[in-house]
Amino acid sequence: MRISELSRRSGVPVATIKYYRREGLLPEGRALNPTTVEYDEEHIERLRLIRSLIQLGGLSVARTREVLEAVDRPLDAFETLGVVHHALPVPSAETNEGKGEGPEGGVDEAASCGAAARVEALIENMGWQISDASPHRPALARSLAELSRIGTDFTADDLAPYARLATATADLDFAQFEGIEDRIALAERAVVLTVLFEPVVRLLRRLAQEDANHRRHDRRACGREE
Amino acid sequence: MRISELSRRSGVPVATIKYYRREGLLPEGRALNPTTVEYDEEHIERLRLIRSLIQLGGLSVARTREVLEAVDRPLDAFETLGVVHHALPVPSAETNEGKGEGPEGGVDEAASCGAAARVEALIENMGWQISDASPHRPALARSLAELSRIGTDFTADDLAPYARLATATADLDFAQFEGIEDRIALAERAVVLTVLFEPVVRLLRRLAQEDANHRRHDRRACGREE
Repeated sequence: MRISELSRRSGVPVATIKYYRREGLLPEGRALNPTTVEYDEEHIERLRLIRSLIQLGGLSVARTREVLEAVDRPLDAFETLGVVHHALPVPSAETNEGKGEGPEGGVDEAASCGAAARVEALIENMGWQISDASPHRPALARSLAELSRIGTDFTADDLAPYARLATATADLDFAQFEGIEDRIALAERAVVLTVLFEPVVRLLRRLAQEDANHRRHDRRACGREE
Repeated sequence: MRISELSRRSGVPVATIKYYRREGLLPEGRALNPTTVEYDEEHIERLRLIRSLIQLGGLSVARTREVLEAVDRPLDAFETLGVVHHALPVPSAETNEGKGEGPEGGVDEAASCGAAARVEALIENMGWQISDASPHRPALARSLAELSRIGTDFTADDLAPYARLATATADLDFAQFEGIEDRIALAERAVVLTVLFEPVVRLLRRLAQEDANHRRHDRRACGREE
């Protein structure tokens, strides 16, 4: 197909396709003659992944290039998922902290070390296999250090019940990968599940919190009536 | 205590304290004479809550004022938590969508209605008590419509196992409110749990996903060796 059809079928504007090609994200098409280039289904699939990484995943062009290079290497599904998973934006608190609201300092070094030790203890207690390069290890330590700073210490033991529920949630997530063998489709699914499905999980927690508040209140109200 | 001591003990700069007072967030102190105003412990507690709402919760000054007015009304803990919970920023996907990357449209109306119906079905199936005013209802519908748009439909039945795990997580959250009777302390705790603890829950899911990927890979590798 020509670039105009590629654009129509993928929903990506011609100018954007040319930009992705210049940036080395999209492979060149097959040159039929000096002015006509032919694209195929693989280009459509690749464009979908690029769009997922950039638009849904929020990745930069440079980061997207790294992920695509990894997906192109002869990796198995396990490694493909690992690369995508580590490339996506890492969750952190969306606070107004550090927006010029005063001199309150950040987290001190001792607090950071203590938090990192608690993360390691949790991973060990859970028997979790986590690579040293995981960006989620230091991110969790930062969140725990932040909580300690405002006087709320969570120990590895406090976190264990939450971690067990996270394991159960991850098993549900992985059931969604079953049957997907194509590496590009798998990478796209990982972006969708991690980025678009994450707010679903967070919103379910908020709804469940509201319900828990109601249940707790009703129980107390009944208790008083008796 | 004088304003300088209030500043020292709360860690909030004097200029910021004066700003909060002008904006009606912090009650006036007791005027000892025309130039000296006396503050007490209640002002310190109130300042902590204001800081939590603005810095951690990311609330605007106007929104903070609404929450404080609600906390000041003679509500019980149930209602206080409800007000704080609904005032906090609602989770959504942190995508680059709509940043001038092309003409792909948003979610159409039919998709939105379908998604809203799935949210209602889920809430009913779970037996959850959720107020009509909850901002998390339409937010979940938006996330589901977004997923449908890219070809990934989640039905109420697909979401039920995730919702059950969310209920278990919310019960852990509520255990953390036990024993807190003071309304201001409770409101502060709700901000901390919702805003600062949310990334912890999200990071635990990411770590558990990495572990699930390892476990799945090891199982396959062992299967091949046999």
